[in-house]
Amino acid sequence: MAAGGNGAGGDTRAAFARIYKTLKEELLTDPAFEFTEESRQWIDRMVDYNVLGGKCNRGLSVVDSYKLLKGADALGEEETFLACTLGWCIEWLQAFFLVLDDIMDDSHTRRGQPCWFRVPQVGLIAANDGIILRNHISRILRRHFKGKPYYADLLDLFNEVEFKTASGQLLDLITTHEGEKDLTKYNITVHGRIVQYKTAYYSFYLPVACALLLSGENLDNYGDVENILVEMGTYFQVQDDYLDCYGDPEFIGKIGTDIEDYKCSWLVVQALERADESQKRILFENYGKKDPACVAKVKNLYKELDLEAVFQEYENESYKKLIADIEAQPSIAVQKVLKSFLHKIYKRQK
Amino acid sequence: MAAGGNGAGGDTRAAFARIYKTLKEELLTDPAFEFTEESRQWIDRMVDYNVLGGKCNRGLSVVDSYKLLKGADALGEEETFLACTLGWCIEWLQAFFLVLDDIMDDSHTRRGQPCWFRVPQVGLIAANDGIILRNHISRILRRHFKGKPYYADLLDLFNEVEFKTASGQLLDLITTHEGEKDLTKYNITVHGRIVQYKTAYYSFYLPVACALLLSGENLDNYGDVENILVEMGTYFQVQDDYLDCYGDPEFIGKIGTDIEDYKCSWLVVQALERADESQKRILFENYGKKDPACVAKVKNLYKELDLEAVFQEYENESYKKLIADIEAQPSIAVQKVLKSFLHKIYKRQK
Repeated sequence: MAAGGNGAGGDTRAAFARIYKTLKEELLTDPAFEFTEESRQWIDRMVDYNVLGGKCNRGLSVVDSYKLLKGADALGEEETFLACTLGWCIEWLQAFFLVLDDIMDDSHTRRGQPCWFRVPQVGLIAANDGIILRNHISRILRRHFKGKPYYADLLDLFNEVEFKTASGQLLDLITTHEGEKDLTKYNITVHGRIVQYKTAYYSFYLPVACALLLSGENLDNYGDVENILVEMGTYFQVQDDYLDCYGDPEFIGKIGTDIEDYKCSWLVVQALERADESQKRILFENYGKKDPACVAKVKNLYKELDLEAVFQEYENESYKKLIADIEAQPSIAVQKVLKSFLHKIYKRQK
Repeated sequence: MAAGGNGAGGDTRAAFARIYKTLKEELLTDPAFEFTEESRQWIDRMVDYNVLGGKCNRGLSVVDSYKLLKGADALGEEETFLACTLGWCIEWLQAFFLVLDDIMDDSHTRRGQPCWFRVPQVGLIAANDGIILRNHISRILRRHFKGKPYYADLLDLFNEVEFKTASGQLLDLITTHEGEKDLTKYNITVHGRIVQYKTAYYSFYLPVACALLLSGENLDNYGDVENILVEMGTYFQVQDDYLDCYGDPEFIGKIGTDIEDYKCSWLVVQALERADESQKRILFENYGKKDPACVAKVKNLYKELDLEAVFQEYENESYKKLIADIEAQPSIAVQKVLKSFLHKIYKRQK
């Protein structure tokens, strides 16, 4: 997945990078486990390999959102530390998902390097490493947040978002992989549900929810904000699906393979909705095949159905709807947070 | 792993079984995810397949321990429900570990049926199912314990025990599998550390810790109890290692393969400590090979070194030490809990 650029300034990035070192060091000397030299080195390398290497947009957006909520240009040392720490927890959560997803999808590369389970001597130990990455979040939260009035809410938040993400992943796996390839299973409801649960909650809602808890807010009062962020996450994933086919591979840094991989992409769902019987036959016969000739037939059909225009229309409508919903929010600070997310992704090219 | 018989009466077992149905039904209608018919059926089947089928000794021991701590023969409806629910959380935790361990060990059967990932149409989706099983614990705890004064401690407890278990599993994986087979890595310290973290915490400490929290106790005051239970868990695993080689396969329900599997078993560690140079050579040449002739040579060496007697000695000494430590505990109720665990496993034959 690509991700919108982050507005974080150099100071935030520097603090964020510095705090990673602290958190990792704490984990490597965690008294809850008696490390051997070998196991400490393993964890050290495993964490660097999997947590680093991304753009940290999700993590940094916790700090940005918290600043906007506070209406402060700069934060104190303690606040910076706590906001960055929650940001890193999201990066750790993402690392956990990616390590396991790559095993399940039998992927080859991730962030420009071999997937962790493909590294020699790692193999399926990677599954346990994924679990350890998830456990690191609990260790970090316990060390730095236990005793705060919102500690239990923070644990609940990460637990609930993890549950939603794993449930979305299950839906994706059984829809895409189970039994015979059957395009009749794909429609906009299924697509929306997979995207909402698998991506939107942890990528969009979680960073803002962390910032809200850190600001002393009760998440029960932010149901609208949750809905807006989940919608924004859906829009983000639709862009991702679009760019997989229409983006510049040079620019987005990868060659899309959603058609070959039989993905429940927004594009194929739109095509299915608009295709007549003979066009549907083309989709059924060519979608999900490695053969470049099949891929070309699908892409031609997308062109025939003018899905580029359908996407532009979707993008414009989504934007209008999101802006209207955001501006209906009572708090200007919250509006700023939401608009900042939206403007990072609107009309993105990668 | 075998497990000591449970003292739970028929009433407890009936209540325990009944409450499983309630918990599963709640999970299948959890509003935190919009199930499709297909995904609900998947979870239903997956939970039955992996959570049931064991002896539930760990889960039932929460209820037994809680009764002993309360000094009550019978519990009220609410208390029974909460104690059984925590017991089921431990069974869910175990299911999560087993599903993932079986993938990592490339195992074939578990509890007399194919491992979950070997079931047709499941495959590596099992890794995500493992995550979902873990998430179910958070969902159950949140539904039934949020608002209790010990809610955060309960989450911390499950998180910390999971972390210790995954860390023990890592230690086991990198000690047993990494690089060349090298018996010089095996010694009683390494064995003890793997066993303590991988098995003892979740099998012995966790049930009692759950019962203590439910009784309103602060776990910080029970460091000795933790140590005793971890020692008991170690003793339990040593028995397991012993029975793998010397138990009656008819009676324990499986044929041991620790020698073939190059396991860091208590027996091989004892053999290494006692072997002279020529005996060590036999171990180095034959341990970890499938060939029955190699296995026989290892077993002969165990006989030569009289490991059966070494084990009897260990068993007697462990028992004496544990009883002494237990009787040094100030609370008679706590003594009863600990003795009940010990007497379930002392001199067990399966």
